[in-house]
Amino acid sequence: MTISGDLLIGGIAVRGAATEFFAVNASSGAALQPAFAGATKDDVERVAALAWEAFPTYRETSLEQRALFLETIADEIMEIGDDLIVRAMDETGLPRPRLEGERARTMGQLRLFAKEVRDGRFQELRFDPADPDRKPVAKPDLRLRNVALGPVAVFGASNFPLAFSVAGGDTASALAAGCPVVVKAHSAHPGTSELVGRAVQKAVATNGLPAGTFAMLFDAGFEVGQALVADHRIRAVGFTGSRRGGTALMKIASERKQPIPVYAEMSSINPVILFPHALSRRGAVIGKSFASSLVLGAGQFCTNPGLIIAVDGDGLEAFISGATQALAEAPAQTMLTGGICEAYSKGVARLAGHAAVRQLAQGKEGTAQQATAALFETTAADFLADAELQEEIFGAAGVIVRCGNEDELFRVIDALEGQLTIALHVDDEDLPLAGRLIPTLELLAGRLLVNGFGTGVEVSPAMVHGGPYPATSDGRSTSVGTLAIYRFLRPVSYQDFPADLLAEPLRSR
Amino acid sequence: MTISGDLLIGGIAVRGAATEFFAVNASSGAALQPAFAGATKDDVERVAALAWEAFPTYRETSLEQRALFLETIADEIMEIGDDLIVRAMDETGLPRPRLEGERARTMGQLRLFAKEVRDGRFQELRFDPADPDRKPVAKPDLRLRNVALGPVAVFGASNFPLAFSVAGGDTASALAAGCPVVVKAHSAHPGTSELVGRAVQKAVATNGLPAGTFAMLFDAGFEVGQALVADHRIRAVGFTGSRRGGTALMKIASERKQPIPVYAEMSSINPVILFPHALSRRGAVIGKSFASSLVLGAGQFCTNPGLIIAVDGDGLEAFISGATQALAEAPAQTMLTGGICEAYSKGVARLAGHAAVRQLAQGKEGTAQQATAALFETTAADFLADAELQEEIFGAAGVIVRCGNEDELFRVIDALEGQLTIALHVDDEDLPLAGRLIPTLELLAGRLLVNGFGTGVEVSPAMVHGGPYPATSDGRSTSVGTLAIYRFLRPVSYQDFPADLLAEPLRSR
Repeated sequence: MTISGDLLIGGIAVRGAATEFFAVNASSGAALQPAFAGATKDDVERVAALAWEAFPTYRETSLEQRALFLETIADEIMEIGDDLIVRAMDETGLPRPRLEGERARTMGQLRLFAKEVRDGRFQELRFDPADPDRKPVAKPDLRLRNVALGPVAVFGASNFPLAFSVAGGDTASALAAGCPVVVKAHSAHPGTSELVGRAVQKAVATNGLPAGTFAMLFDAGFEVGQALVADHRIRAVGFTGSRRGGTALMKIASERKQPIPVYAEMSSINPVILFPHALSRRGAVIGKSFASSLVLGAGQFCTNPGLIIAVDGDGLEAFISGATQALAEAPAQTMLTGGICEAYSKGVARLAGHAAVRQLAQGKEGTAQQATAALFETTAADFLADAELQEEIFGAAGVIVRCGNEDELFRVIDALEGQLTIALHVDDEDLPLAGRLIPTLELLAGRLLVNGFGTGVEVSPAMVHGGPYPATSDGRSTSVGTLAIYRFLRPVSYQDFPADLLAEPLRSR
Repeated sequence: MTISGDLLIGGIAVRGAATEFFAVNASSGAALQPAFAGATKDDVERVAALAWEAFPTYRETSLEQRALFLETIADEIMEIGDDLIVRAMDETGLPRPRLEGERARTMGQLRLFAKEVRDGRFQELRFDPADPDRKPVAKPDLRLRNVALGPVAVFGASNFPLAFSVAGGDTASALAAGCPVVVKAHSAHPGTSELVGRAVQKAVATNGLPAGTFAMLFDAGFEVGQALVADHRIRAVGFTGSRRGGTALMKIASERKQPIPVYAEMSSINPVILFPHALSRRGAVIGKSFASSLVLGAGQFCTNPGLIIAVDGDGLEAFISGATQALAEAPAQTMLTGGICEAYSKGVARLAGHAAVRQLAQGKEGTAQQATAALFETTAADFLADAELQEEIFGAAGVIVRCGNEDELFRVIDALEGQLTIALHVDDEDLPLAGRLIPTLELLAGRLLVNGFGTGVEVSPAMVHGGPYPATSDGRSTSVGTLAIYRFLRPVSYQDFPADLLAEPLRSR
């Protein structure tokens, strides 16, 4: 499959008329061919109109048709073959095994949502029969189902070029719900995006769906994404990225004539709480496994463990020693983009220069495109005094907050913002103390986990990849797992409808 | 039970220190005793702190405890006896049968949510067992449940002094979800509010719940409500009222450090579409029943049918003649407040003076506190040219939009804003045309109904009392029926939790 740098609109490839840009080899910094052409406002208008036009047909496809479509997308992505992996390696600097795994996850997500669509429970069919004899007034016949919200704008994520980009979780769940999708491709991996976008476009065609069911736009800047979110035919937004980016989209969406939901996954430092007995029994081992989790994928996971909270003592010293030794051996890693690498270096420098912060360890140094892991420590009092210490540094940097006692530990936890995950490391004797914390932790995060780290995100029915603001814009939702489909649905009640007017699934009783 | 005019905070009655105000007899305009004392910022601080303190205990009450609490509230409301009905009649001008019916509905809602709590499905328990042998990595144990969002601010509605006020649908569903509730009582019926508030307070005490589980504040202005929505311990808002009021709260909520969901039910003109065959066969009869629905409760229902859309012809003339005759006989009715009556009169005068609008009928005139029903007509072209003609006039005023042909009818429908309900009047021969419209109507309203009017809102599992903006602030929700509980919940995932750390319902497998 060739990469042309074109926009994908209305079932074909169309040359954009706005600023051109190039993908960059993440490892070398060299520009990659071809030039990608940005979309204009006219293109936004066109894709929104086509998506709106496709919507009535697409949302009333049968469950089987829609499931097959999702499965076809998975097949078409596999059909691209190794070109996809090679291009993604070039554009993101991520290693082959990670990208092959991510491709498998992406296909797995599509197939999982196909299953969820066939299952049909997401329709939330409810039948509430009439009772003409009820006093004082007769009871009407009421039936309910969930309907799709409308066309969804999906923003590709820099850190998941496959699983959270063109045909990633947001796209899969929106399409599963019956919503056409317009993707704003991430400009850090436009070639990867185009390859996948063409695979989706092909699946649209072979399944005989309206061409407007899917489109993909490029943009060297922010205008296209902003215009999409402002367009009256776009009815929901899926986004994974920075807090600044997410809140900007939230603002646009809330100021529209008709505000729409924005599902933005933004910012999380994923605190890890180390309990005394676990620490004293296996502090060094936990420290070592923490270091592995911290540097995984150059720390570029939304669930990267950026904050360690523990009470001072020998156990914590053992943890630090284990983590420090492991980190010292950690090779420098190529980050997704030069910009991300630069932001990481700045964040690390800010911590290193902070009066209340002490650097404990750092990984090996590498090339200019590579990032060096770093571990810092501060005290509970200093952490509580400076909200900036809670800001996410995207990459393999962690801060340990030393608490003088349990009371300080509780106060540090009370000061936390909303998170995607919070991990607890406990032994049996720690359970009473941990139990006292759970009610607070439940209010702070979408996922709590014991004796592990949040970096593996299972795609399953019981997963919540979400959490209170600023982890996400809407803590009532998840962007991973089957519950993600509900983000793009709303209930409609049908009263006293003759069978002929009812949608097929509502006729059955 | 006496009415003292006090705030209800922390299980007791407390005299407010802000501006005093009096309830007003809706029929006579005379002030009613006693004086109600407004709350200060300190009171807001106090109730938020108490609600936050109560939250951990209240949200972990057993399902049975919580269900009993809701049932106790219903019993306590009944215990107030006729004093409640008499005071509500004075304050709202609504007739006895309506208020007795509304009391029954209020108790029915509380009992329905008690049943929903016992049923437990709202917890959305999901069990996703571990698989240590899975390749390439072991699968963790994942369990999921919905947890309560936190303290909820509920705003009493002027038009439902019982069913959507202190212990109305928002309060019942928030309490059912496990959220403490702080009510900002509507100042149009403060005595009614206090009576019900004291009943809830008593139920809190007899059920041994934390005193902060419920509080009620008065305010002559808007500051208290705004301060509540801005408070960091308030985690969701339930509101029924004007578009201006609802959007003001949405703005405050979105600008908080941690934005929260606002469920505001605001503005709907509930279009009624009359189809040709139904019109030609029984236009006059539909016209008559439309008039009855229009004047029901002085037109002060959120679901009042304010817009009629039909294609010109003899059938429409018959409809108009039926409606006109019935309306001419409609007595003037006391509105809820002088302010509402004045706003209604202004709205009617605005229509009457509109160059593109013609008055067709009006009801009988009454006293200064009473409103006269009114029916107007305009053309599709004029309706499409002036968005103001789509603005809700709260009260018994309707506008007929005459369409020259089907095409115009479709265009009028395409121009509609989001609605709570849309009604269709059809005969068998109309079904093909109606069927073509349903996909559009589904996107516009929370409830579609056939051969009826939306004024009766069934409290049931298949009800949606919601709809796209501006009908509500969040078209993914309903404020009536059992689905309303989901507004106040969010999912949390628990990974590899030892049984001792899991909440009881998640231990069972």
